[in-house]
Amino acid sequence: MNPQVKAVEYAVRGPIVLKAGEIELELQRGIKKPFTEVIRANIGDAQAMGQQPITFLRQVMALCTYPNLLDSPSFPEDAKKRARRILQACGGNSLGSYSASQGVNCIREDVAAYITRRDGGVPADPDNIYLTTGASDGISTILKILVSGGGKSRTGVMIPIPQYPLYSAVISELDAIQVNYYLDEENCWALNVNELRRAVQEAKDHCDPKVLCIINPGNPTGQVQSRKCIEDVIHFAWEEKLFLLADEVYQDNVYSPDCRFHSFKKVLYEMGPEYSSNVELASFHSTSKGYMGECGYRGGYMEVINLHPEIKGQLVKLLSVRLCPPVSGQAAMDIVVNPPVPGEESFEQFSREKESVLGNLAKKAKLTEDLFNQVPGIHCNPLQGAMYAFPRIFLPAKAVEAAQAHQMAPDMFYCMKLLEETGICVVPGSGFGQREGTYHFRMTILPPVEKLKTVLQKVKDFHINFLEKYA
Amino acid sequence: MNPQVKAVEYAVRGPIVLKAGEIELELQRGIKKPFTEVIRANIGDAQAMGQQPITFLRQVMALCTYPNLLDSPSFPEDAKKRARRILQACGGNSLGSYSASQGVNCIREDVAAYITRRDGGVPADPDNIYLTTGASDGISTILKILVSGGGKSRTGVMIPIPQYPLYSAVISELDAIQVNYYLDEENCWALNVNELRRAVQEAKDHCDPKVLCIINPGNPTGQVQSRKCIEDVIHFAWEEKLFLLADEVYQDNVYSPDCRFHSFKKVLYEMGPEYSSNVELASFHSTSKGYMGECGYRGGYMEVINLHPEIKGQLVKLLSVRLCPPVSGQAAMDIVVNPPVPGEESFEQFSREKESVLGNLAKKAKLTEDLFNQVPGIHCNPLQGAMYAFPRIFLPAKAVEAAQAHQMAPDMFYCMKLLEETGICVVPGSGFGQREGTYHFRMTILPPVEKLKTVLQKVKDFHINFLEKYA
Repeated sequence: MNPQVKAVEYAVRGPIVLKAGEIELELQRGIKKPFTEVIRANIGDAQAMGQQPITFLRQVMALCTYPNLLDSPSFPEDAKKRARRILQACGGNSLGSYSASQGVNCIREDVAAYITRRDGGVPADPDNIYLTTGASDGISTILKILVSGGGKSRTGVMIPIPQYPLYSAVISELDAIQVNYYLDEENCWALNVNELRRAVQEAKDHCDPKVLCIINPGNPTGQVQSRKCIEDVIHFAWEEKLFLLADEVYQDNVYSPDCRFHSFKKVLYEMGPEYSSNVELASFHSTSKGYMGECGYRGGYMEVINLHPEIKGQLVKLLSVRLCPPVSGQAAMDIVVNPPVPGEESFEQFSREKESVLGNLAKKAKLTEDLFNQVPGIHCNPLQGAMYAFPRIFLPAKAVEAAQAHQMAPDMFYCMKLLEETGICVVPGSGFGQREGTYHFRMTILPPVEKLKTVLQKVKDFHINFLEKYA
Repeated sequence: MNPQVKAVEYAVRGPIVLKAGEIELELQRGIKKPFTEVIRANIGDAQAMGQQPITFLRQVMALCTYPNLLDSPSFPEDAKKRARRILQACGGNSLGSYSASQGVNCIREDVAAYITRRDGGVPADPDNIYLTTGASDGISTILKILVSGGGKSRTGVMIPIPQYPLYSAVISELDAIQVNYYLDEENCWALNVNELRRAVQEAKDHCDPKVLCIINPGNPTGQVQSRKCIEDVIHFAWEEKLFLLADEVYQDNVYSPDCRFHSFKKVLYEMGPEYSSNVELASFHSTSKGYMGECGYRGGYMEVINLHPEIKGQLVKLLSVRLCPPVSGQAAMDIVVNPPVPGEESFEQFSREKESVLGNLAKKAKLTEDLFNQVPGIHCNPLQGAMYAFPRIFLPAKAVEAAQAHQMAPDMFYCMKLLEETGICVVPGSGFGQREGTYHFRMTILPPVEKLKTVLQKVKDFHINFLEKYA
């Protein structure tokens, strides 16, 4: 068996999620529990939590799937226009044909136009856009190409701690070296460039740091980076000749009124040609998050900047081995980047649906922060963006001992107890990485408001009991 | 840059296909050529060649995509029944939710029921079914888990020559050792077990052969293995303790009246418990081929037999890092394994459409074989199954010299000339592997009958000219 595969860990679907599945089966079999359902707050899966799909998106998808519907009066003209445009760009006018490995041409053009609008006119080139099978596929493909070397020349990949565990998993798989830089919990999980400097200097003793991964808005930490911070990071990447990976899948998920999303691409261009012609950047987006939450379609794209032509050639070759990303996911991505505009028939309904989802998420972000901070022994930074709370939990020494007796990380022990006693499934901080001796968990804010209130109340009650029990 | 990525080659979308794209752009720009369109006979992409999707499949997909249509009288009840069943098994009743990493439960049940029917009652267990992103994803994931070791203990993976180049590409990527066994062109590309013995013995000098890959029906070679041959292969795998990978994506594409598809799973069970409880097997299927040709949805499944529980755990973990296969592709796979049955409203139309596609393919297989064999300097084995002709071309010494002067493989030189002079894009045999000094190309038989006749006539004329030119 491949030892690098053995070394892979992925907490978001790890042992606690397997346990949740077992408990669900027991409930189905009629086994009595102190709760009647498992609430899967472990994964950012909006529609599984009851969020309704955006009507326009699904209308276009249905028209592309079954083009007979193009004659139906029940579908709006703007949806039909989008569907016709996608289909005319597909082989045989069908979603059932392979696309080019890089993705359907007109969809890459739409992505480039979207990026240009988003970034206030900074140009994007469709040749630099690659459609992907969700963002995970793009991230792992780029890392696969960049990693090389043995011994001290093994590639170092810098990732935030806490991180989204796709990064650590792919780094293990590729036998690269994970170089941790710590986000500053005392300071709303900010990224401090001095910490990047510390990390890269220490790493140079035992590997060759080549790649710097950034997640903004943060997962699991929910911070939104300031423009100043992004400039500092880009300057650092330029100094150290690091390839920047900007995971920006939560770009639509910014809730705090003091925060705005700034793309790395835009800031890079605005810093002038010394940066914009030299720093290598790949940025990632997805259909799975934002307001649409279309996880199942596995749509995504990446934009690459300053990629060496040889690497670009290798990228296309590598993508071609897997033929193409799912064309239905590409179509979903197209609708995300090319939504109805004012004057179009579907604009009003689309805007209403989008704002309803994002408005609710903003409410739930505030609600979660406030409620967690009322609980003794829990501290929660503001949820400026993304879809998760990542509160710090202060565990009594006796709980830590009890966990050790069960050969479990203390936060895993806590989360297992939470699951067993309340049915709420969250992911221990140890699955994302955290400073030694601190404990956290990640919980999504996706359940509907009333349900989320109940969940938070249950966590609070559990936590207070837990503290008493292990006092 | 990753040296293993650099070593990857994938001819089906390689330099000749890039050239085809350039020529298409030139035609669009109005540059005159001896032809008016490029015919992409390089890839098994049925719908791109004008094949219409199966109506029932797309109806169910549209219903799943936009469930409002469940109230529409324009959709048949049996399609609605399928759609409801799929949706009730999805999180939030939506294709937009992530599924379990192994795939939607009820779809895995339907796959197991299909396999049991196909194999005349040999049982299949849904726990052994993994839904995948096309078959390629399953094949590369299993290989990734199985490969290990360095130096003489590096894993050897046995593949047929000629092969489908996914295999060589993944082997390069994983830094495993490719162990070639040659199919017998003189004998309709049969697999001879003595050749397997030779290959494994020679390989043991420099690696640890662990995996045996079989493609049946063959790609690019189109042979259909006899039951006897499959028994011999299984016995050999048992003797040598090899993990069997059976690529059976063309299981519906058998044209020769003397041939039948036998699954490795069925034969394994019928050989008795010594084999059926010991030989490890993974077999693969896909929505992309057969009569449906739904390549763009990237649907597929694999069934694993006798997989060690530890490896099974690693498999689920590895799949979970990529979250899940596209749920729309899973739904497409469901309809392939759970089509309308006699008595259902859509049965007649479904059967007519299916038989029309398969009947046409059988006609085109015979037509292609017959026509190629009329051309001096071309020899083509019967196309017993799959979707390709892989004729041998006898190239004059002067042509081989001219190719060398251009630093090209002789069959690449031939295929480039064919493309430039006729617009027909086929893949040189060197991209699949062939015995030293022999030359071939792979051409799909997917164009509609009349167009295929024109294509074959053009290849014939080109070939005769080519022989004259380099005589």
